[in-house]
Amino acid sequence: MSDIPQRPTLAVVGATGAVGTVMLALLTERPDVWGEIRLVASARSAGRTLRVRGEDVPVQALAPEVFDGVDIAVFDVPDEVSAQWAPVAAARGAVAVDNSGAFRMDPDVPLVVPEVNADAVADRPRGIIANPNCTTLSMIVAVGALHRAFGLESLVATSYQAASGAGQSGIDTLYAQLELVGGTRELGQTAGDVRKAVGEEGLGPFPAPLALNVVPWAGSLKDGGWSSEELKIRNESRKILGLPGLRVSATCVRVPVVTTHAVAVHARFSQPVTAGQARDVLASAPGVAVLDDPSAGEFPTPADVVGTDPTWVGRIRQSPDDPYEVALFVCGDNLRKGAALNTLQIAEFLAGG
Amino acid sequence: MSDIPQRPTLAVVGATGAVGTVMLALLTERPDVWGEIRLVASARSAGRTLRVRGEDVPVQALAPEVFDGVDIAVFDVPDEVSAQWAPVAAARGAVAVDNSGAFRMDPDVPLVVPEVNADAVADRPRGIIANPNCTTLSMIVAVGALHRAFGLESLVATSYQAASGAGQSGIDTLYAQLELVGGTRELGQTAGDVRKAVGEEGLGPFPAPLALNVVPWAGSLKDGGWSSEELKIRNESRKILGLPGLRVSATCVRVPVVTTHAVAVHARFSQPVTAGQARDVLASAPGVAVLDDPSAGEFPTPADVVGTDPTWVGRIRQSPDDPYEVALFVCGDNLRKGAALNTLQIAEFLAGG
Repeated sequence: MSDIPQRPTLAVVGATGAVGTVMLALLTERPDVWGEIRLVASARSAGRTLRVRGEDVPVQALAPEVFDGVDIAVFDVPDEVSAQWAPVAAARGAVAVDNSGAFRMDPDVPLVVPEVNADAVADRPRGIIANPNCTTLSMIVAVGALHRAFGLESLVATSYQAASGAGQSGIDTLYAQLELVGGTRELGQTAGDVRKAVGEEGLGPFPAPLALNVVPWAGSLKDGGWSSEELKIRNESRKILGLPGLRVSATCVRVPVVTTHAVAVHARFSQPVTAGQARDVLASAPGVAVLDDPSAGEFPTPADVVGTDPTWVGRIRQSPDDPYEVALFVCGDNLRKGAALNTLQIAEFLAGG
Repeated sequence: MSDIPQRPTLAVVGATGAVGTVMLALLTERPDVWGEIRLVASARSAGRTLRVRGEDVPVQALAPEVFDGVDIAVFDVPDEVSAQWAPVAAARGAVAVDNSGAFRMDPDVPLVVPEVNADAVADRPRGIIANPNCTTLSMIVAVGALHRAFGLESLVATSYQAASGAGQSGIDTLYAQLELVGGTRELGQTAGDVRKAVGEEGLGPFPAPLALNVVPWAGSLKDGGWSSEELKIRNESRKILGLPGLRVSATCVRVPVVTTHAVAVHARFSQPVTAGQARDVLASAPGVAVLDDPSAGEFPTPADVVGTDPTWVGRIRQSPDDPYEVALFVCGDNLRKGAALNTLQIAEFLAGG
């Protein structure tokens, strides 16, 4: 990382999006390791001014020249935009840290969660580092800490995914649907009546109504009936943990929550693990906050932890039938640790922060 | 069952509750195998008149005499009321079919799901038959069909449980919370703001806000940090399936849905099972409806199946890493099959229906 100077120049590509907005807030809140911060977006947004570190910064249109003099470029844009432009940034000398799905499984691109595999950033032959999917990120810091201590053998993960995982249109759709059904006590008791109230045009990015409902689908259809989101949890967990043979089975379900993904994790290890042992490891793990006292009503919920940085863990239990298996309930803000924060943590690590 | 006459007399105890209301609707809809139907509730509700089979029927106060001449008494009342009164009904000659938790794990009381273990009704030394918990019931018909075909070895079940599982107060609480947060777009983005909007007094029967949230808790605290609801899934599944050594690990989570529980099931069998084999078994299983074509956006969701009788199954997948494991997403109306319908099916089976 010797090629990155003190107070490097950072470019934020996708500065005007839902994740970009969180990124600018984080850049303002966190210790400032940056020299120039350059904001980049599509031509449509160019010319706008956004506030970061207390200053108004103009948004520049995405073009090869915007990367000249940039040391690190973070991308939060659609896959196809990243696929085209991250290599352009790298060719101009920047390290590209990309939050799309374009490069995550590329063997020449490290997939990095600083608390788990920070050292992987060093080997980046394409000059690109990938940021994991938000659902993987919502649990992997906790799972990684347990793996280091006990040796992970298999994982069943079922998600309770927030609407904002589908971007700003996901958020807007959920709020619009809630306004339609919120005051109507008859809705939700008869098959299809929520669907009728919402209408086909009100579904937004979701394949079924999300208000007063849960929807067992996220992403696109892959082989064997698996959704792309479910396979991302499997494939990305394997790559981040360095466990190519890890057995992973996931079911991804969208729930009517605005922001913060929750994941019920049932993990099996190579040795018996008590709840107390798991709790001790998690309590001292960087990036993890344990909230686990059901007798006092304490466990993480999305609405109670949204807007915070840690991976929150509660409901830590040893299986009554298998001493090698531990169950957890994990919550992580999908726009912060699940996207903007982890991307920025990678950039800060590169910057020697 | 020779002691139950043609057109037997049925008593419905708890006729005025949320499940009782569904019971009366089902008694009106379904083939009429009953002679007299007697409605029973607490003294507070006695004297009211409720409509069943198109007739107005007076509600009688719970007392030993109401069971005189009753052949079958179905109970949907709190555990302590059942514990006291189901034996009274049995002593007066009725078969008590009880939907509380009071008798489910009693070795002298069969725990029955007609599609799975109807024959178990015959051995009822106490004159009492128990109806399973609603979350177990929401998945067990599908799981039971797969067990018969492939031999179940272990089960990970994570629930997406509806508010009505906590009774009428659960329903009322969810609607009231939705009215508070429905039109407020700022809510749900900052930790604790939903909690502040709802207030401590607005939590109702839930330990955290349910609107714009999910809550990883149902029931009471048991050993090892498990909730009573999670252990019910384990213990009841073992008893119903006749598998005392079955490995079961469950995480129960309440979601902002009015009625219909969903369960993500990851089940491991004694032999390899393809998705096609599982789908074929489920498609021909009594009480199961398969809705599984993600390419056409087809999978069950609570809002699309609420108010119907079957156990709906979709997202049928074979694990990519373990050919013995199958994942499913199951939806069942927790007030119908999860409570009133199964209770009535047991009663009808006793009546020779």
